[in-house]
Amino acid sequence: MEPLFELAIRLPGAGSRDLLREVHRQLRDAILDGRLQPGARLPATRALAGRLGVSRNTMLAAYDLLLSEGYLLARPGAGTYVADTLPRSRRGRTSKGASGRRDPRLVPLNVPGADLAPTLQPQRARDDFRVGLPDIGAFPFDIWRRLSDRALRRIAQEPADYAEPQGQAALREAIAGHVSFTRAVGCTADDIVVTAGAQQAFGLLARILVVPGRTVVAVEQLFYPSLREAMTAAGAKVATVPTDVEGLCVDRLPPEVRVICVTPSHQFPTGVAMSPQRRAALLAFARARNAVVIEDDYDSEFRFAGRPLDALQTLDRAESVCYVGTFSKSLFPALRLGFVVAPPWARAALVRARELADWHGPVLGQEALAAFIAEGHLARHIRKMRKVYGARRDALLEALERHGAGRLEVIPSDAGLHLSAWLRTGTRDHAVVEHAAAAGITLPPLSRFALDPLAPDAPNGLAFGYGLIDESQIDGAIRRLAALL
Amino acid sequence: MEPLFELAIRLPGAGSRDLLREVHRQLRDAILDGRLQPGARLPATRALAGRLGVSRNTMLAAYDLLLSEGYLLARPGAGTYVADTLPRSRRGRTSKGASGRRDPRLVPLNVPGADLAPTLQPQRARDDFRVGLPDIGAFPFDIWRRLSDRALRRIAQEPADYAEPQGQAALREAIAGHVSFTRAVGCTADDIVVTAGAQQAFGLLARILVVPGRTVVAVEQLFYPSLREAMTAAGAKVATVPTDVEGLCVDRLPPEVRVICVTPSHQFPTGVAMSPQRRAALLAFARARNAVVIEDDYDSEFRFAGRPLDALQTLDRAESVCYVGTFSKSLFPALRLGFVVAPPWARAALVRARELADWHGPVLGQEALAAFIAEGHLARHIRKMRKVYGARRDALLEALERHGAGRLEVIPSDAGLHLSAWLRTGTRDHAVVEHAAAAGITLPPLSRFALDPLAPDAPNGLAFGYGLIDESQIDGAIRRLAALL
Repeated sequence: MEPLFELAIRLPGAGSRDLLREVHRQLRDAILDGRLQPGARLPATRALAGRLGVSRNTMLAAYDLLLSEGYLLARPGAGTYVADTLPRSRRGRTSKGASGRRDPRLVPLNVPGADLAPTLQPQRARDDFRVGLPDIGAFPFDIWRRLSDRALRRIAQEPADYAEPQGQAALREAIAGHVSFTRAVGCTADDIVVTAGAQQAFGLLARILVVPGRTVVAVEQLFYPSLREAMTAAGAKVATVPTDVEGLCVDRLPPEVRVICVTPSHQFPTGVAMSPQRRAALLAFARARNAVVIEDDYDSEFRFAGRPLDALQTLDRAESVCYVGTFSKSLFPALRLGFVVAPPWARAALVRARELADWHGPVLGQEALAAFIAEGHLARHIRKMRKVYGARRDALLEALERHGAGRLEVIPSDAGLHLSAWLRTGTRDHAVVEHAAAAGITLPPLSRFALDPLAPDAPNGLAFGYGLIDESQIDGAIRRLAALL
Repeated sequence: MEPLFELAIRLPGAGSRDLLREVHRQLRDAILDGRLQPGARLPATRALAGRLGVSRNTMLAAYDLLLSEGYLLARPGAGTYVADTLPRSRRGRTSKGASGRRDPRLVPLNVPGADLAPTLQPQRARDDFRVGLPDIGAFPFDIWRRLSDRALRRIAQEPADYAEPQGQAALREAIAGHVSFTRAVGCTADDIVVTAGAQQAFGLLARILVVPGRTVVAVEQLFYPSLREAMTAAGAKVATVPTDVEGLCVDRLPPEVRVICVTPSHQFPTGVAMSPQRRAALLAFARARNAVVIEDDYDSEFRFAGRPLDALQTLDRAESVCYVGTFSKSLFPALRLGFVVAPPWARAALVRARELADWHGPVLGQEALAAFIAEGHLARHIRKMRKVYGARRDALLEALERHGAGRLEVIPSDAGLHLSAWLRTGTRDHAVVEHAAAAGITLPPLSRFALDPLAPDAPNGLAFGYGLIDESQIDGAIRRLAALL
């Protein structure tokens, strides 16, 4: 416990919410700059609370948050420790100078704490409900290997050259065919800009649509943090807009908004589908205001009931929509391939932004994917995985009903790789997540996807990804989780 | 010739240099927005000059420039045509609205004309002296395929996950070993940030070092255009600093400069090596002013005489240097892998900038490259290619001496994948390049790498890449080129 005496935590004389924030921040900084070493045991919350003169609840909440962020680990019965799995590069002396301050040569990244605090991935657990990760156990890697070898042979036969920033023509052709067929997204190969996953798509779109310090970008009330960060890093003024059971509340959009980021097929993270009325209203709004809609269609290939609603891109008549797709969920994230279906006015700028960012993507993966799609393997794999995920989803719904009824209220949703549920007990979601982690269950709290996870009115719920967990494990895991509530 | 009547070229009543610029710009715009269709024949320079009321020399210079940029093609004896090889996506209606103006929803990219005018790659020719492209004919693709298959098998065995933004640990380990050994760059795996080629390295460094509209970035008098564009796009105020036979004139650096971009091993494009005195002076300058040096070491693996000079990174004692390396020259550009050796204070920010930009690179290529380096194949390939390139370089030097003496003055250089020479005739380099293209020889004019290729004092010379051309072709090509001078 000794090292904590040197942490020199200084607390403002403010309200308890600010206190919590401050305790959380200072502990995290101490971990990041190495004053609290990996493996160090933390004092009991009661003891530390006493020493710092804050309430034990504040201390508990700070620990919970650090646990849910992966900075701390709870060893059942043995106390709380600094995680020893922080990547070495993200630790201590490497992230800040000895003074703990930003080197004056560095420019801030505009994302609060971004150049100091890394994003931590939660640990793998026995029962892994992390969201956004597919099952690759059934992926036909043998076919991929064959197509990849073939692509490599073709590369070997041509003289070396740099490639098209827009993406390999064969891949754009294949993607256009795929999304035209599966999502009725009207496009040709010319409309496709290949990106390094959805994250690069967000960054490039921000680059061509955001005037730093001026452009207002709307995101949904609960949002995908990396999307918001891409916008913030580009200098956008990000406004959070309420959503309800029909999706984004279009009438709550600030009038000065220029870019609107939505996940209409399967709202991230709640899973709600945007209603047809809202879709129409959003497009009318964009048309009237000359605003741009970024439609993030990240996992709608997996649909389990009902007919898919038309993509915004399909309904758009004013070239307002930039449609973003990814192969991280339908194939595998190591591939790092996504795309934008861009309206004509945005395309050249988007391609040029990619050229400025990294010129073009690696050719081999693009060519292999082009062949994989063109030969029908993607469609086949999606069909196969839809059955696998469908069975897991059924098992999950059943288990949540059986073990969680009255405490976990499932949010209706027909598609995607995860389900969400509201917590209807008094417990805060990050506390549940912490206890679950100690019991070998990993899952994200919904509050993590809010602007202010600590706000008293932050959403309170849990998301259950079923990409990584086996069907046979689901019932047991949910039973154990429900027992913790 | 009819379409030109509709081009509505309007010329300012200014000096002839502005006239040339204007004619060039308006013709290029007409090609880009489709008013001049691919394959369309242009009027003879004399006729068009008469019609527009400019001198024939101005018209000739505008055509030359468009020819050297690849917008036009000369068919010997048959006139001048709009290139029909513009990628479809970069043509006409797709790059601008019908009005020929930027859509109001787009934010300018800060790079003049960037969202309208694409960068064109010159056409492949029989005798191809393009710079920056390696010979992959002798690359051991069979080994690569084996390592790639092995990496894929490993990926297939793990549950899906996103990877480290900093790069795969095995690759960072391998790169650190490689540059420590070959370039005496002192670093460990922790210091390496893997990037999508050098271009992404420049973009990320700009992101963390440049305050838009304020930070002054120095580039060499002749520079790699994509580096300058990355800086300009990030909002840097770019200053061009003279170079001489010892490299960058450190005493000409503006006092307010914060970032200095140099190619000390093999100045791009002249090939000059920065002298030890200048290296020391540059590091002293950076230390005294708290400025950052970006050392772009793009092709120094190929050294043909003398001992390599220490890298700036090796000499640096003030954590001033960010060292950028690439595998596009030593391996192949389709791989799209490069790296930064970053000083400790910059590392976390750089990793976070990459995470914001595209999260991480594709895993497969990184793992294959890690094994390729670790098993000694990279060192072996470089040794083999050094002999191949050395022989070509000798043939080139001999041919330039034999056929070009008095007209082409070779710039001394001991390393790299290309040589440069000053033109000592009255002819402008872009005119030579145009005539050479008509004779089946592709090579870049040195003026292309100046801030203002049209300035009367722009450098006048040619660069000769020997990555793509066979040794046996070199003498004949240079003989034919010399005959054009």
